[in-house]
Amino acid sequence: MAIKIGILGAASYVAGELIKILLLHPQTEITYLESETFAGQNITLAHSFLRGLCNLSCEKYNKDAVLSRCELLFICKSHGESMGYVVDLQDSNLRIVDLSADFRLKDAQIYQKWYGKNHLLPQALAHAVYGLAEINSGQIKQTSLIANPGCYPTSVILACAPLIQAGVVNSQAIAVNAFSGLSGAGKTPKAGFNLFIDAFANIKPYRAGAHAHQPEIEQELQNFSQQKVQVSFIPHIVPIERGIISNIVLNANRTLSNEQIAEIYQEFYAGQPFIQIYHPPQMPQISDVAGTNFCALGWYYDQRTNLLTVISMLDNVLKGAAGQAVQCMNIMYDFPQTLGLPWGKLL
Amino acid sequence: MAIKIGILGAASYVAGELIKILLLHPQTEITYLESETFAGQNITLAHSFLRGLCNLSCEKYNKDAVLSRCELLFICKSHGESMGYVVDLQDSNLRIVDLSADFRLKDAQIYQKWYGKNHLLPQALAHAVYGLAEINSGQIKQTSLIANPGCYPTSVILACAPLIQAGVVNSQAIAVNAFSGLSGAGKTPKAGFNLFIDAFANIKPYRAGAHAHQPEIEQELQNFSQQKVQVSFIPHIVPIERGIISNIVLNANRTLSNEQIAEIYQEFYAGQPFIQIYHPPQMPQISDVAGTNFCALGWYYDQRTNLLTVISMLDNVLKGAAGQAVQCMNIMYDFPQTLGLPWGKLL
Amino acid sequence: MAIKIGILGAASYVAGELIKILLLHPQTEITYLESETFAGQNITLAHSFLRGLCNLSCEKYNKDAVLSRCELLFICKSHGESMGYVVDLQDSNLRIVDLSADFRLKDAQIYQKWYGKNHLLPQALAHAVYGLAEINSGQIKQTSLIANPGCYPTSVILACAPLIQAGVVNSQAIAVNAFSGLSGAGKTPKAGFNLFIDAFANIKPYRAGAHAHQPEIEQELQNFSQQKVQVSFIPHIVPIERGIISNIVLNANRTLSNEQIAEIYQEFYAGQPFIQIYHPPQMPQISDVAGTNFCALGWYYDQRTNLLTVISMLDNVLKGAAGQAVQCMNIMYDFPQTLGLPWGKLL
Amino acid sequence: MAIKIGILGAASYVAGELIKILLLHPQTEITYLESETFAGQNITLAHSFLRGLCNLSCEKYNKDAVLSRCELLFICKSHGESMGYVVDLQDSNLRIVDLSADFRLKDAQIYQKWYGKNHLLPQALAHAVYGLAEINSGQIKQTSLIANPGCYPTSVILACAPLIQAGVVNSQAIAVNAFSGLSGAGKTPKAGFNLFIDAFANIKPYRAGAHAHQPEIEQELQNFSQQKVQVSFIPHIVPIERGIISNIVLNANRTLSNEQIAEIYQEFYAGQPFIQIYHPPQMPQISDVAGTNFCALGWYYDQRTNLLTVISMLDNVLKGAAGQAVQCMNIMYDFPQTLGLPWGKLL
Repeated sequence: MAIKIGILGAASYVAGELIKILLLHPQTEITYLESETFAGQNITLAHSFLRGLCNLSCEKYNKDAVLSRCELLFICKSHGESMGYVVDLQDSNLRIVDLSADFRLKDAQIYQKWYGKNHLLPQALAHAVYGLAEINSGQIKQTSLIANPGCYPTSVILACAPLIQAGVVNSQAIAVNAFSGLSGAGKTPKAGFNLFIDAFANIKPYRAGAHAHQPEIEQELQNFSQQKVQVSFIPHIVPIERGIISNIVLNANRTLSNEQIAEIYQEFYAGQPFIQIYHPPQMPQISDVAGTNFCALGWYYDQRTNLLTVISMLDNVLKGAAGQAVQCMNIMYDFPQTLGLPWGKLL
Repeated sequence: MAIKIGILGAASYVAGELIKILLLHPQTEITYLESETFAGQNITLAHSFLRGLCNLSCEKYNKDAVLSRCELLFICKSHGESMGYVVDLQDSNLRIVDLSADFRLKDAQIYQKWYGKNHLLPQALAHAVYGLAEINSGQIKQTSLIANPGCYPTSVILACAPLIQAGVVNSQAIAVNAFSGLSGAGKTPKAGFNLFIDAFANIKPYRAGAHAHQPEIEQELQNFSQQKVQVSFIPHIVPIERGIISNIVLNANRTLSNEQIAEIYQEFYAGQPFIQIYHPPQMPQISDVAGTNFCALGWYYDQRTNLLTVISMLDNVLKGAAGQAVQCMNIMYDFPQTLGLPWGKLL
Repeated sequence: MAIKIGILGAASYVAGELIKILLLHPQTEITYLESETFAGQNITLAHSFLRGLCNLSCEKYNKDAVLSRCELLFICKSHGESMGYVVDLQDSNLRIVDLSADFRLKDAQIYQKWYGKNHLLPQALAHAVYGLAEINSGQIKQTSLIANPGCYPTSVILACAPLIQAGVVNSQAIAVNAFSGLSGAGKTPKAGFNLFIDAFANIKPYRAGAHAHQPEIEQELQNFSQQKVQVSFIPHIVPIERGIISNIVLNANRTLSNEQIAEIYQEFYAGQPFIQIYHPPQMPQISDVAGTNFCALGWYYDQRTNLLTVISMLDNVLKGAAGQAVQCMNIMYDFPQTLGLPWGKLL
Repeated sequence: MAIKIGILGAASYVAGELIKILLLHPQTEITYLESETFAGQNITLAHSFLRGLCNLSCEKYNKDAVLSRCELLFICKSHGESMGYVVDLQDSNLRIVDLSADFRLKDAQIYQKWYGKNHLLPQALAHAVYGLAEINSGQIKQTSLIANPGCYPTSVILACAPLIQAGVVNSQAIAVNAFSGLSGAGKTPKAGFNLFIDAFANIKPYRAGAHAHQPEIEQELQNFSQQKVQVSFIPHIVPIERGIISNIVLNANRTLSNEQIAEIYQEFYAGQPFIQIYHPPQMPQISDVAGTNFCALGWYYDQRTNLLTVISMLDNVLKGAAGQAVQCMNIMYDFPQTLGLPWGKLL
């Protein structure tokens, strides 16, 4: 009865989280774990915290095995690599949630520009659904290919979409300074970047204006709002394991009040289980979203300057990756969105 | 021959740093350490890292002792408390560097509004000099009362002053999101704020639009530029001991280039030993300024949106407090600015 | 049908964890939350991570309310304070799990010596059961008053009991160096100890030979083994939020082998769901037990010196406090020990 | 007049520290920086904190350049690599301080066993001097080849030598649990070990009984004391950048007192500027030695068990590497030991 789940790239950081969630999810059974590096070995060698909890072995990739043993496949491969598997599996009725960036950008040329690779399946870009549950749940229900959103874009889009739709901010000059914990950098060493001695007690901006999440943010906000959106985007590394804070500076189009802003968010997110709205002077903090599937939104509006600064926080591994992927799965199968994600910060 | 130095509030976090610097400074001798709590006790009980380096005892406050034994007094008392000592010592030719906020704001009413206290010596506000060495060195040389700048204001003013003076940004709508390490919160416990378990692996905005460093930033930028300045200011706590990063979003008045921006900064700070300018795509990082007296400036200019984001970093305890205080002392006594501050990150 | 649960001291750090676990536990309902400080206020003011998850308000202590609304009471008050509530509630059939140290030591004089307070209910000490589930489950099932074990003692007793029972080590000269994260220090500020700036990037031994967990370890190992036990105990603070590592140096009575040691542990803990045994050269790490109810045991045996070093790790807040308390509750009510504690590191 | 200094392996973590110290040392001039990776590039590309402080470029290794431009060479290459350079430079009167392990072990077979490499210059092992200044200053003065001690061995030998010499402990069964910050692991990524996400909020024992610092400790304590020494050695990683704490459990040969122990240490280290002795119940903490060249020693003696636990702390990069190397240089050139190392924690 349980949904049979396969995971490609099972040794990756995000796959570890996905496995933990799926093991406790009442409607799923993990039937296939693929890892090139750990093929033939127990998954606990890749994720020692699964010791005593999961006894599955990893396998090499095998198309037949995937198709015969899985209903739903989560792909946790890196950008550029993921699409190859989708190509290989395209003539099947397998459902796929791709956690890479390969099917997020709708324009193969933009993909090529930002990721430096030719897209292998441009014809799929149009019908792949951007899996941001709070915005696209209708389409998520219908599709068999989900492009799971990026971590930074999730935090920024959820903060901006209601305001742009309400027409109260200038969508063409949005300044985002976003700060991510190191789990966002995955398990691959990058010189001077994600070693403990590089990141500890440090904060470091990187790839200002050159991070591929920028066109993703702009595309989705534009598609949603039908307005031109331009974002100046600077990501930073902060010395925590999990969590993103996006500080988003917007120019209000007219004088606002905190009550008006609160109303815009409350209406937009009415009934959404994973959005938490903080009213000034209350503000979220990372420790309350880390380990959860929440996105928490707070803001400060300065009446003198008409500057509205929205502060958006989430756990990059959960709401920004594995949690959101399960949320999408829940929607695809008509489960409650919170199934298996009771709230997050369980223990 | 050495300058005789007294320190009030010698047990405070910032005084500990000051003592370390002054012990190695070739032109100073510490002759008086005041601490109410540690009176009669060795200073190493307050600052265990001074063990084996400094054998002085703390004393209770005594006006005569200060006047007879000190030429220069650093006051490391909290806001509101500091001015009482200045009142007591005003009829003397003692030089004073006050590290509290008591003499920073020029208007006693604004002081009262933001600090909740009546000013005890409003007549001194006019001639107290705001000790930002890179801007006010001429006045610093002449005065006997220095208001040592706040940590956040130092980082923001140094980033903005050149741009406002050059007239290339809108000075009336500046958005600042600043992030400080916990040493900025000092040694006094604040519920839910500066315990290890509150701050570890956490990021937390606080007092958005309500932090007393906001009027300080506005006042000094206005005084300097003779233009109206308005800042939307949101401070945050980040889980590091030392360091501030201020992310400052400015709207450019016209299309700029990185070359023009670089030139503005380079001309403004020509010959300044403690300013480090990073050219895009290079950016500073906290680990390179922590433990130093540097202020490091980088930026990202987005031509599409005309948004200029300046990233300013410094060590809140050094360039943002004790280091700057010694820099002021060096100017007052016509020493090289770097004397006893060879660069900072020595060991 | 669910067990009605009350919690005294609901604003404490450990109570926050307990509430999280109990909210998801399928057989419990929280019916009473006591907090002096937060009486009349929502529990989310004490534990912001409960926002959106728990809407209960705190109340002042009221004996009638406890007795009429609760079947089981968890007391999360500090040492010395807790026993007063047990006195007040003694003539009832309420079940109590006391997370303080008040009923751990069986001898009121030893209690007085180490905690500096006269015991208010010495006659209860004999029948209070030390709630170490892996050792005392039979008694836990029968009692109505559980003394929930200390965090350090849990880690040390679980490591030593099998070896002492097997007679392979000298029980009279055990050296323990234990290292705890800061959550063990709770929410009360202690000067120079648990501020972020005190603990960050620091390791600090404290109260060597003078920590009240030492007699607790000795008492329980003696009671269990009927042998004399003497422990040299040095606790330390390490800059993490959760986790204890106890490094226990034992002198083997005779030449051992890793196989023999493994067998001793495996037999002793056969069927225990929360004990993880690591065979050399494998060793546990804190990140695999943090957020779980596991106790992980590894060791290194040096044949040349006959020194056996056992390394015991657990999460001080879970297996060392709230998790163990729920484990005891599960045993009292004949639930599977793992009910509501599926494994711990869920999200 | 200044000593001309060359550094091989200038891009390594420890070389960065060495450069910082030497730049401020009043008697040295850096004349040659070798780095394979950064040849032709400014040293600030390897060590960004040197920006504005050091403008030297790295060069490829060239024997003639070394011999013509340097009087003293610090080798910061990895174990196994270093000895090749010493072979190449042996027929010269260059003085060499080798920071690798290549000349620490006196027996080429033991070197081969623990480092897995044949020694290239076994005939030099006898006259290479183990550069532990507090023990071997006489020999350091005379030699032209110094084997700079390992970080763990420095902390353990300084703690044990006085006690073994005094004959008060059993030297044949010493249990050491040592904990090091991540700077000890250098800049080379090691899977599952020194990424931020591996080490953050984690503590992890590794290579118990299999770390090559164990024979180094035993050899030096034996050579010094002429007694058989056996150490059970377990290193751990702790989530800090700098600092080692070694917890050393010794069995006293007879009943001792804290006064006797204090006297043993005080006599042994009389006049030593970098040894700090803490009398019970005082204990050192990492934050007081990090950034300094100190080794701090505290202990707890349990009279009931006759167990003596010594706690030894130092900064692994300074007293455990670069600081000690400069201390050796000072001794070689008859400078005060503290020259250029005024105390360490300067800023």
